[in-house]
Amino acid sequence: MSSLLIAWQLKDKNVLIVGGGEVASQRVDSILPTGAHIALLAPSDGLNPRTRCLIDEHSDSITYYDRRFSGPDDLIGADMVLTALDDVDLSRDICNICRTAKIPVNAADIPDACDFYFGSQIRDGPLQIMISTNGNGPKMANIIKERLQKALSGLEGQAITKVGALRALLKIRAPGVGGAVSKRRMKWMSSLCNAWTLEELVLLDDAMMQKLLDVGWENDRIPTFEEVGGRRPEPDYGNPLVPQAIGFIAGALLAFYLLKLGRRKWRSLF
Amino acid sequence: MSSLLIAWQLKDKNVLIVGGGEVASQRVDSILPTGAHIALLAPSDGLNPRTRCLIDEHSDSITYYDRRFSGPDDLIGADMVLTALDDVDLSRDICNICRTAKIPVNAADIPDACDFYFGSQIRDGPLQIMISTNGNGPKMANIIKERLQKALSGLEGQAITKVGALRALLKIRAPGVGGAVSKRRMKWMSSLCNAWTLEELVLLDDAMMQKLLDVGWENDRIPTFEEVGGRRPEPDYGNPLVPQAIGFIAGALLAFYLLKLGRRKWRSLF
Repeated sequence: MSSLLIAWQLKDKNVLIVGGGEVASQRVDSILPTGAHIALLAPSDGLNPRTRCLIDEHSDSITYYDRRFSGPDDLIGADMVLTALDDVDLSRDICNICRTAKIPVNAADIPDACDFYFGSQIRDGPLQIMISTNGNGPKMANIIKERLQKALSGLEGQAITKVGALRALLKIRAPGVGGAVSKRRMKWMSSLCNAWTLEELVLLDDAMMQKLLDVGWENDRIPTFEEVGGRRPEPDYGNPLVPQAIGFIAGALLAFYLLKLGRRKWRSLF
Repeated sequence: MSSLLIAWQLKDKNVLIVGGGEVASQRVDSILPTGAHIALLAPSDGLNPRTRCLIDEHSDSITYYDRRFSGPDDLIGADMVLTALDDVDLSRDICNICRTAKIPVNAADIPDACDFYFGSQIRDGPLQIMISTNGNGPKMANIIKERLQKALSGLEGQAITKVGALRALLKIRAPGVGGAVSKRRMKWMSSLCNAWTLEELVLLDDAMMQKLLDVGWENDRIPTFEEVGGRRPEPDYGNPLVPQAIGFIAGALLAFYLLKLGRRKWRSLF
């Protein structure tokens, strides 16, 4: 059976992490970029140095409680619970309470108690890629992640940001959810993404976006990059002083050699 | 803000899909492989041909109700709700009821009402890869998906299956959750995945797995593929009759030519 891979929204939600070891620090890493508020429950003598460091550095996002899990009341207000404990029985107990309270829960290293699993991730701005082996091999997920990373050009995140900005402008110009306008918007955006390269999308600026909508959207066609005023940056050859100096020296050496050769030839002639 | 990408478990859970159009059919596609039971609510006159086809083909997984959404009672027992409706107000109403009942909900085309988003997916056996642009461009997710697909060798799914089987055997030999044994297992499996190629992992069979555990795990080292009896398949050159026939003809022609040449030489000698 496979999982349903989804992008869960946690902005302004409350996430409770029970435990303070290495896995807990990885959970904090996963949750911090989502904009959730984290409550971390662990006795300070069991805190991993990295977890302690994260708590100190992100005190605006993390509230730390220096104590053990004490019962169902600890879960009040939580929108998601992550346990990272060595105590398997306690972890299972917490999962059961969560299930009754309908709070999504993940228990590290106890797959059958989890509502959801984590996976390897690639992030590049608004782009997020998750690799899951459905619990068959976390290391394999990492190996595949590295392979996929090499296949990305590094421009994807920036291109998506520009496409998102253009899409927002288009929604202002042609508003409405669902129905014909929604379909036309989707089709036009899709054609643009197909027609333009990643490099061209990255170079989109405000003026070009306006022109794209004026010339393209209004006439239901996809203008080229050049048509909306797109200009590729001049190739950058770096500091010109070094090649200049090399050229100067080479020229001087050649002149010197020719002069010498010339003199000898003259000598041989006369 | 970015999402938390997770692999949600739906085996034997109840998923309610409200709507029967094209998006509803895509939702059914996403949910079917998870082993969930699907309830689909939509008047039959609004059913998309593909949705109708899926309902007919997967009657063991999908229960179809030929009617509109009628109120909170429709959500009783649901573990997840997906709306795929043109009626934005109704979609928002359903989302609100879900939120009160703490049922995770996704409303197609209304991002701010969703607990989670879908993304582009790659599947290969136990391997699942999700590409999310955090709502900035579904088409860009597709373009990146195609690029990533090309970077995969096609052996990843099979290799993960073999690694999962070996891991299960190792857990029987060295049981226990958490603590030192868990860490040693993880480290050994991880070293194996690093040392062996995908091709070698795919060729793992039962006997090799046993030998790997006997020789490798027990002595805390990683044997080579050959050491545990691994054999790469002979390269397959296809049917040998054709090259044989070509060889025969070439041989005959050469003999014929040499004989002729020989005769001429003899003649020229005598």
